[in-house]
Amino acid sequence: MTRVTVWTEYRQERNDPAVAAVYPDGIHTMIAEGLRDAGFDVRTATLDEPDHGLTDDVLAETDVLTWWGHVAHGEVDDVVVERVHSRVLDGMGLIVLHSGHHSKIFKRLMGTTCDLNWRESGDRERLWVVDPAHPIAESLGEGFTLDAEEMYGEHFDVPAPDRLVLISWFSGGEVFRSGCCYERGRGRIFSSAPVTRRIRRIGTQGSVGSSPMLSRGQPVRKGMRPNVAIAPRHRRWSRAATDVAAPGVV
Amino acid sequence: MTRVTVWTEYRQERNDPAVAAVYPDGIHTMIAEGLRDAGFDVRTATLDEPDHGLTDDVLAETDVLTWWGHVAHGEVDDVVVERVHSRVLDGMGLIVLHSGHHSKIFKRLMGTTCDLNWRESGDRERLWVVDPAHPIAESLGEGFTLDAEEMYGEHFDVPAPDRLVLISWFSGGEVFRSGCCYERGRGRIFSSAPVTRRIRRIGTQGSVGSSPMLSRGQPVRKGMRPNVAIAPRHRRWSRAATDVAAPGVV
Amino acid sequence: MTRVTVWTEYRQERNDPAVAAVYPDGIHTMIAEGLRDAGFDVRTATLDEPDHGLTDDVLAETDVLTWWGHVAHGEVDDVVVERVHSRVLDGMGLIVLHSGHHSKIFKRLMGTTCDLNWRESGDRERLWVVDPAHPIAESLGEGFTLDAEEMYGEHFDVPAPDRLVLISWFSGGEVFRSGCCYERGRGRIFSSAPVTRRIRRIGTQGSVGSSPMLSRGQPVRKGMRPNVAIAPRHRRWSRAATDVAAPGVV
Amino acid sequence: MTRVTVWTEYRQERNDPAVAAVYPDGIHTMIAEGLRDAGFDVRTATLDEPDHGLTDDVLAETDVLTWWGHVAHGEVDDVVVERVHSRVLDGMGLIVLHSGHHSKIFKRLMGTTCDLNWRESGDRERLWVVDPAHPIAESLGEGFTLDAEEMYGEHFDVPAPDRLVLISWFSGGEVFRSGCCYERGRGRIFSSAPVTRRIRRIGTQGSVGSSPMLSRGQPVRKGMRPNVAIAPRHRRWSRAATDVAAPGVV
Repeated sequence: MTRVTVWTEYRQERNDPAVAAVYPDGIHTMIAEGLRDAGFDVRTATLDEPDHGLTDDVLAETDVLTWWGHVAHGEVDDVVVERVHSRVLDGMGLIVLHSGHHSKIFKRLMGTTCDLNWRESGDRERLWVVDPAHPIAESLGEGFTLDAEEMYGEHFDVPAPDRLVLISWFSGGEVFRSGCCYERGRGRIFSSAPVTRRIRRIGTQGSVGSSPMLSRGQPVRKGMRPNVAIAPRHRRWSRAATDVAAPGVV
Repeated sequence: MTRVTVWTEYRQERNDPAVAAVYPDGIHTMIAEGLRDAGFDVRTATLDEPDHGLTDDVLAETDVLTWWGHVAHGEVDDVVVERVHSRVLDGMGLIVLHSGHHSKIFKRLMGTTCDLNWRESGDRERLWVVDPAHPIAESLGEGFTLDAEEMYGEHFDVPAPDRLVLISWFSGGEVFRSGCCYERGRGRIFSSAPVTRRIRRIGTQGSVGSSPMLSRGQPVRKGMRPNVAIAPRHRRWSRAATDVAAPGVV
Repeated sequence: MTRVTVWTEYRQERNDPAVAAVYPDGIHTMIAEGLRDAGFDVRTATLDEPDHGLTDDVLAETDVLTWWGHVAHGEVDDVVVERVHSRVLDGMGLIVLHSGHHSKIFKRLMGTTCDLNWRESGDRERLWVVDPAHPIAESLGEGFTLDAEEMYGEHFDVPAPDRLVLISWFSGGEVFRSGCCYERGRGRIFSSAPVTRRIRRIGTQGSVGSSPMLSRGQPVRKGMRPNVAIAPRHRRWSRAATDVAAPGVV
Repeated sequence: MTRVTVWTEYRQERNDPAVAAVYPDGIHTMIAEGLRDAGFDVRTATLDEPDHGLTDDVLAETDVLTWWGHVAHGEVDDVVVERVHSRVLDGMGLIVLHSGHHSKIFKRLMGTTCDLNWRESGDRERLWVVDPAHPIAESLGEGFTLDAEEMYGEHFDVPAPDRLVLISWFSGGEVFRSGCCYERGRGRIFSSAPVTRRIRRIGTQGSVGSSPMLSRGQPVRKGMRPNVAIAPRHRRWSRAATDVAAPGVV
């Protein structure tokens, strides 16, 4: 069984009541549940654990690592970044979710700034499949729509992906390469940064995100709408993306 | 000096008064003028000439061929298609404009259907640069906007481009890989199909197109708006695209 | 279970005693046996059957088609080529073996001549893995060696592969992109043309080939050495390549 | 005129009499002369200058930087590496020569270890063109041969190149992706690491290299053979590679 480690910061869920209301047990818990339901062997790790929960032993037993961070990228220890980097080159899969595009580990692997254009807007986002032969596109048909998303737009400063699977359209006028596959060393990386269900800003508290790609479309409260309609489709896709990233699995 | 041959059908301009009013001398004439102004050595060829104007001698003296067709793809002789195909593999550049995506020669080179989603709509189109290191993107900044365009959308059934330079956003909700570079044999191909100024449908006469990429932003009449504002930028880009496609030119 | 159709010409095995001695039941039979042992649901089809054995019904029930041809490419009916082409774009996997690089279907999909340099030589061939993250490379380590191979060398006139997995070295001084992955439409294509066990020329009868990639390393007679040593490794690889090409399988 | 800065360590030429005998004025001087002859505006910079000779001002006035290092990669200041990295993403071209594949700047840009297999051997190296449509291949025909080279072989731990132009064959049995083009941010990178004239080990002094790609085929002494025969071809290629890397030049 593919072993997945779900990593998140787990900060805003503890410090911000509005966020805590939506994710009482943290985003990682929700992502982990979704992946367990999809048949994976899942553990979690978060920023404030020793070694951020990512010891050599944990990484050695991880086939696919999912990464979500937002407000504390700079607090991730360079030693851990190098450890994860080395493990990816050695064959561990990595799925970078949402604002994880600005994490140290993703920038380290890409060799570029990974900057993008950004707007907290509640745009409608349509994700179009441009590589229908790719396993990740298997269950997606022509694509799908997310309502009320944060906008992530081009130019996205990354290397040209080895396979470009999805391109997003935003109602505000932008496009984004939102499903990018990379291979680095023996590792497979999937950048699904903007393929996420995002919760709109509440007051001045900023935004946090959950991933429909990896989630079950968890109900959200306080005026935030979950993306329930796309949950079943996403569950299947989640499985595909995780399988694709896993080593030793064809 | 780079030698360019501009090929078009030259049918609607002769048969349809509304089109003739816009392009009294044919689209090829307008494209040719723009390229001459940009410093190229230009000749034209059209469907109803013997050999469609594309004899071995003409092709041997052509560095870059631009191709535009719309209503008569099926009338292009297979013998000429094979001749052009062979010349491209031998090093001639090919720029496929607008509805030329469905030409025999482009489908022959791609090995796919080259189908796309399509709507005659007068959408607003924003073209975003996703490969700012590419020479064709040199003068384009983050991108540019065209008003009142025909929509060409994904999925575009072509091989993944060797370099993807532009992605289009349409106000109706679609995206499109609108600037694609390919190399086949010794030849370089640029598919700029949708990067065109298109003239909206007049009555039931169908639509025809001119290319701001290769044109001077020719004034158009009868309620059709030229894309004058983007002409100077396009002139520079036109030069870049043609240079990139030319063999022997670094 | 993935359904594989093994297609070969089945001509030399019937007309040439030296070849018949090695493949008494045809190359297709041997490839089919190897794939059955690897757990696939396998049928065969050959040139001289009606429709070359490739009716719409057969193709509709085929997940992966393997193609081997050598002396009779020109006899394959264009109608069948179009049928196979259409089915590949619709999602059927295609594995092109050895001299199948010059088949109509491969040239149709590539859009190029697919020419290469060639020498019947008994060269030593070393195949190096250049994309260790690719599933097909999973069991291959740094690569492997084949003795006494026909040389297939660059320049190989194909589009740049979407993923380049293997590069071959030949003792006579050539290199070759010998494991190339392509995606066309919804279909995945693996060109393993030169990754084959080849039997050296006997007198003037020409050469035929068997594929260690897809075979069990069948014993060969009359002074021809089988590649027994690499058989187990190849069996595993064979499975990976076939799985990768199959649609609906992650 | 394209402005080139030639950077090398300039250590072995000062410390090792055998190397000094071959490059009395340093490798950088020789490379610079070759590029000046090819029509470029050239300056040099070396490790032991303040800021390694690579101040913000120098970089701002540099269109293409060539990088050669061998024994002192670790002594390059991280501050300078970040400065060069930032300038590459901003559009400066970078040509990484020979053992520069292990430089901090190349590893920073690639995001991988850039490790390779290596042997000081005096192998014969044949470089095959696999992308004849690429400007760098313009003057190279099918490829060319270098005698008595150091062997650089796969697996080369780099991302799949955006364009793969050359593959090397070594008499000892290896292959290598020896001409790789990358784009990162607005910058174009050409890794020609092994496309170099290398001088064999003298006693225990280690090896140093000169680049026929960028040189005039400088005579070498003490039993080392220059690659005079390929000099004219290389001069043309050198120009192509430098032009391709330059921003603003089509």
